[in-house]
Amino acid sequence: MPALDYFNARLEATISPMDYLKSTQMNPDKYFLIDVRNGPIHVRSLTIKDANVIPQQELQERLNEIPKDKEIIVYCWDVWCNTAAKVAKYLLEDGYNVKELTGGIAAWKEMNLPVSDTSQGVNIPDSCGC
Amino acid sequence: MPALDYFNARLEATISPMDYLKSTQMNPDKYFLIDVRNGPIHVRSLTIKDANVIPQQELQERLNEIPKDKEIIVYCWDVWCNTAAKVAKYLLEDGYNVKELTGGIAAWKEMNLPVSDTSQGVNIPDSCGC
Amino acid sequence: MPALDYFNARLEATISPMDYLKSTQMNPDKYFLIDVRNGPIHVRSLTIKDANVIPQQELQERLNEIPKDKEIIVYCWDVWCNTAAKVAKYLLEDGYNVKELTGGIAAWKEMNLPVSDTSQGVNIPDSCGC
Repeated sequence: MPALDYFNARLEATISPMDYLKSTQMNPDKYFLIDVRNGPIHVRSLTIKDANVIPQQELQERLNEIPKDKEIIVYCWDVWCNTAAKVAKYLLEDGYNVKELTGGIAAWKEMNLPVSDTSQGVNIPDSCGC
Repeated sequence: MPALDYFNARLEATISPMDYLKSTQMNPDKYFLIDVRNGPIHVRSLTIKDANVIPQQELQERLNEIPKDKEIIVYCWDVWCNTAAKVAKYLLEDGYNVKELTGGIAAWKEMNLPVSDTSQGVNIPDSCGC
Repeated sequence: MPALDYFNARLEATISPMDYLKSTQMNPDKYFLIDVRNGPIHVRSLTIKDANVIPQQELQERLNEIPKDKEIIVYCWDVWCNTAAKVAKYLLEDGYNVKELTGGIAAWKEMNLPVSDTSQGVNIPDSCGC
């Protein structure tokens, strides 16, 4: 029954922005959210509010920052980005409990959910993702 | 051969907007399309034309509205939405034949495919998804 | 461990635009990139630079154009498009080494990566995908 396997795997491996938001409001200490995007820091200064910034390229040397007793949520740029999937694979193989946030920062911004700007504090993005 | 498994599962579990449109034009009675989005009704008054509106939160009590002899197509907001996947999993486990419409209402609108507005009748959306 | 299976399968079956770009710059002869979109040619005149245009509907009769000794990368319109997945499945079953380019032409254009216009030569698209 491959269709059911597909949905089970996807629901096991991912969490949507709205589900993450609701769940973290009920259990503020349940998750450890990581922004794993690589690239120049000025293009990724806007992050999801309260995200821990650990670029994929620094993951191995900064593993000690990631708690084993929390559910790890990773995200990158958009639905077509594979960086979060690579990190999720690495951490799952190392025994962590990991999910990918679907749609990355792009979906989060499109829904006007709360973000942080590392140089300017918390703010709300414009309504259009362009 | 995990890559082949991946594509087989995805093609078994999903149908694209264009494939759905072509197939339903040839076989108008083949499918039962369900809009499973939750949330305030005013933000989801625009639906795919001829969709049956059964929010995920009402699914269990409205199961009797879903025919067992048709192919069930479910959709939610966008590619990053997991609500349709949850409904698909639930219905597959209950013996229904189910596929998810890829991209949800967002992809459908982006291609200017026919929609309904529950308060205003059928119309065609603007060309830009912003 | 379905979450790990999910990420392994996705990483085996897909390559992101950025990963493809970096890899092809280091190994220009490693890949054979195919634009498999169907539909009127005027709506798909803009392609990824150096892509081979073989619409899915012409695949069977043009199989001889596809080299067996390269890694085949296929793409279509967007993340919700299934045409590239269908071609990937077909070619994998025929013994080719195949990956799908995530996000299709839409993600590629959104990042302003190099494209070709079959009627006008190589150019760079505008910054907004609208």
